[in-house]
Amino acid sequence: MIIFGVDPGFAITGYGVIEYRNNRFRVLDYGVIETEAKTELPQRLCIINDRLHELLERHKPDAMSVEELFFNTNIKTAIAVGHGRGVALLTAAKAGIPVYEYTPLQVKQAVVGYGRAKKEQVQYMVKVLLGLDSIPKPDDAADALAVAICHAHRSGMQTQLRIRQDGL
Amino acid sequence: MIIFGVDPGFAITGYGVIEYRNNRFRVLDYGVIETEAKTELPQRLCIINDRLHELLERHKPDAMSVEELFFNTNIKTAIAVGHGRGVALLTAAKAGIPVYEYTPLQVKQAVVGYGRAKKEQVQYMVKVLLGLDSIPKPDDAADALAVAICHAHRSGMQTQLRIRQDGL
Repeated sequence: MIIFGVDPGFAITGYGVIEYRNNRFRVLDYGVIETEAKTELPQRLCIINDRLHELLERHKPDAMSVEELFFNTNIKTAIAVGHGRGVALLTAAKAGIPVYEYTPLQVKQAVVGYGRAKKEQVQYMVKVLLGLDSIPKPDDAADALAVAICHAHRSGMQTQLRIRQDGL
Repeated sequence: MIIFGVDPGFAITGYGVIEYRNNRFRVLDYGVIETEAKTELPQRLCIINDRLHELLERHKPDAMSVEELFFNTNIKTAIAVGHGRGVALLTAAKAGIPVYEYTPLQVKQAVVGYGRAKKEQVQYMVKVLLGLDSIPKPDDAADALAVAICHAHRSGMQTQLRIRQDGL
């Protein structure tokens, strides 16, 4: 299963693409899509849409995984991220890729096993689980890989659950 | 000049299309794009994108006009509207239509001549300026027509300004 994780934003959209097979992870790609403040808003959304579309075409993921937006950020950030996140979800839907949303708590639990884990612990475990030599940079790419790992674990659990139910 | 006004949202996106020629308005179309709460988020964004795209293709406007999002709404609304607004701006940009943003103050000043006008006054003046028999319903459609009128006045002023400068 190929999973495309996204950390939506506006100036910076993080992405991380992983393959999950036989309980093992392989990193296929990660990075960020950056848009410049001097570029006009609609054009910035076009850049996010075009780059994400290219990446989805290239990796043909089975799922997009994305964090839910929470209401403890400031409202200016929430609006900006809302614009970028809307475009990211649209791009996946247009490409026929199912989108899964996870809370920050679910991501931390899946990656570190502890819902109150700090950002540094999450980033460290992303490196360990994916067998990387160093923590992926920038943070937005590491966050995107974390939410991709979360989907792998969660969908793995769902498969296991189905197998157990089938076996009853 | 044909102007496509949008009142972005998520459950309801209002739109209003007007023609502005020789200081006169003509309403070409108005209405709302509704998405159901039971439909999944990415599919709701697809519906907004598809319907807006159809409307832009049909009316071929010279400009899209949209209100700026303000930070006095609650954060949950801001995130939801941010998703829909991002998709609306992307749809215009992809169709090559320039987008103009106006503050609520600018819209009220353009339509009523008074920045602190109440919603009811704005709606009443939309009816009068556009020569309609009644106030357009629902509110989201009337708001979209108001921001379209705002762009007509503002761009009209710019034209007049240019003519005066040319005449100097």
